[in-house]
Amino acid sequence: MKESPLFWPARLKKSVLEVLDETLIPDKVRYIKVKNTDGAVKVIRDMKTRAFGQFLVVLSTFLLELGKMKSFKKTDLKGQQKVLAKIQNIASSLNKSRPTFPFAEVTGIVVRWAMMAIDSRLDVRSFVMKNTQGYLESIRAKRLERVNNIAAIIEDGDTILTHCNVSGELAMAAALCKEQKKEVHFFATETRPYFQGARLTCWELQQMGADVTLIADNAVGSVLADRLISKVIVGSDRSCANNDFANKIGTYQIAVVAKKFNTPVYVLVQPSNRIRTGKDIPIEIRKAEELLKFNGKKVFRGKVEGFYPGFDVVPAELVKQFIAIKVTENA
Amino acid sequence: MKESPLFWPARLKKSVLEVLDETLIPDKVRYIKVKNTDGAVKVIRDMKTRAFGQFLVVLSTFLLELGKMKSFKKTDLKGQQKVLAKIQNIASSLNKSRPTFPFAEVTGIVVRWAMMAIDSRLDVRSFVMKNTQGYLESIRAKRLERVNNIAAIIEDGDTILTHCNVSGELAMAAALCKEQKKEVHFFATETRPYFQGARLTCWELQQMGADVTLIADNAVGSVLADRLISKVIVGSDRSCANNDFANKIGTYQIAVVAKKFNTPVYVLVQPSNRIRTGKDIPIEIRKAEELLKFNGKKVFRGKVEGFYPGFDVVPAELVKQFIAIKVTENA
Repeated sequence: MKESPLFWPARLKKSVLEVLDETLIPDKVRYIKVKNTDGAVKVIRDMKTRAFGQFLVVLSTFLLELGKMKSFKKTDLKGQQKVLAKIQNIASSLNKSRPTFPFAEVTGIVVRWAMMAIDSRLDVRSFVMKNTQGYLESIRAKRLERVNNIAAIIEDGDTILTHCNVSGELAMAAALCKEQKKEVHFFATETRPYFQGARLTCWELQQMGADVTLIADNAVGSVLADRLISKVIVGSDRSCANNDFANKIGTYQIAVVAKKFNTPVYVLVQPSNRIRTGKDIPIEIRKAEELLKFNGKKVFRGKVEGFYPGFDVVPAELVKQFIAIKVTENA
Repeated sequence: MKESPLFWPARLKKSVLEVLDETLIPDKVRYIKVKNTDGAVKVIRDMKTRAFGQFLVVLSTFLLELGKMKSFKKTDLKGQQKVLAKIQNIASSLNKSRPTFPFAEVTGIVVRWAMMAIDSRLDVRSFVMKNTQGYLESIRAKRLERVNNIAAIIEDGDTILTHCNVSGELAMAAALCKEQKKEVHFFATETRPYFQGARLTCWELQQMGADVTLIADNAVGSVLADRLISKVIVGSDRSCANNDFANKIGTYQIAVVAKKFNTPVYVLVQPSNRIRTGKDIPIEIRKAEELLKFNGKKVFRGKVEGFYPGFDVVPAELVKQFIAIKVTENA
């Protein structure tokens, strides 16, 4: 299967983690060299990577840091505790990087592996590294499987509205549909203020040979009302036990209007259900100045207060189908 | 009453019509010199002026052109026919400038005055000029009255969401509310792709001393769902006999979400009802490249197809109250 760079946007090369700088796309496909946890926190906080990329960077950061540590003998309990402490430190730093993505859930998995290793008198470093690698491989396989599932949902003649960017999967499904001789057209929202839809989604759909039309976020209601859309497919940044989910700001209003016209909404969800309902999801309020800038440049010079919630919450009842991946945490 | 420059954005000075260049706000308050009908069509087509400004420019263009003509004797029927032909030419050029605004309705008023003058053996030039001036004065008075009506609807403690820009009236109502000691807060959408909300609405609300917060168009659903908004007040670019109306793209989805939360929507409408229902309104599809630019500069360099309807249609049932102005066409 042809792969989008956004599908697996970070790669570990010896003692450096290379992270795709998504803010430069479509101008340049460039990777940022991350050398330690602080560097990882920075690429996340600066939104150089996002969505699945955050998840990948978080897990890879443990591999990066543990790769730099020396091995202790299995029986060296003090040494093993040192590795555990290091893992807890990494987790704690990563958890503080951004609020809405479930960092604590992801880092918690690694911390649990470390505790398990301590309890079972195993070598923490190698046990955690092996499990993390296995976990990433199984996620990779499940995501590739989901690409097939998405393609199976898409029918010949569909016009699909998407918002923000779902990290390679939709674009790769589009490529699959093309192989399967299905005619499909995509509409991508701009996704202000970071233009992820315009920059990432349009770009990767085109890279994969799909037809895509860009619309302003304001045009969502209009294209749905005019029945130009047959399906909505979006991602999810955080899911709840009751299936409510948080995604990029703007997803909620798309879902509300889609419901009005019975246009089915499909959501790619992450395996996460430690939060009960949508009301309990902490919504990240980002700096208002990001609203007034594009790629670091001011787009207008007026002084104005802004309010920029990064995400909104979509109640489960607005969704036709959740397309989940289920990955077991235990290697 | 303190006046916003957007309230009356064009002024006739001898043989030149000065039109406020709304694309330069908030950087500069600068007027473009329009010397003839072609110049008027250009400022409209280039969106240097919009909404009420278009209306004002259209009527002022007749005053501008007629001001440059010589007077014929009342009894010189050939001369009077010449003036009528000139008026019809001006009307025809203006009608072709942009589709969604009801240019033909506005120019039709002037053409009818010219015909009336011919029928009644009056001097066409002076009759039309006098009526046009009188009409503009009465519109000015009615709009000032509507500013009072808007202020009367706004209650102490209100948080008001607005979209695009309603040409001075809302900002002046905000100033009135302040005088009346009502605490009011405004939320303005950015209004992509031209950022009228960010550039014009935020600017003029601030000029009038009001508190305003800018949000991305994507955040409309979120602020309504979080009950941060008590009233929605928007303008209308075109109204129908059944009260459906067209306004800047994005208004429809605001109205749909507002309805879901019973947040009342108030609409400032123009006196226009020659179109039966919303379905009959021609929607202007603007060039996709406008989506990719800001003030003439590309905001990103990727090549992508775009679809940019300039307006959407809002069914009357989503509206709590229409705030109309009724101006009689006969002086």
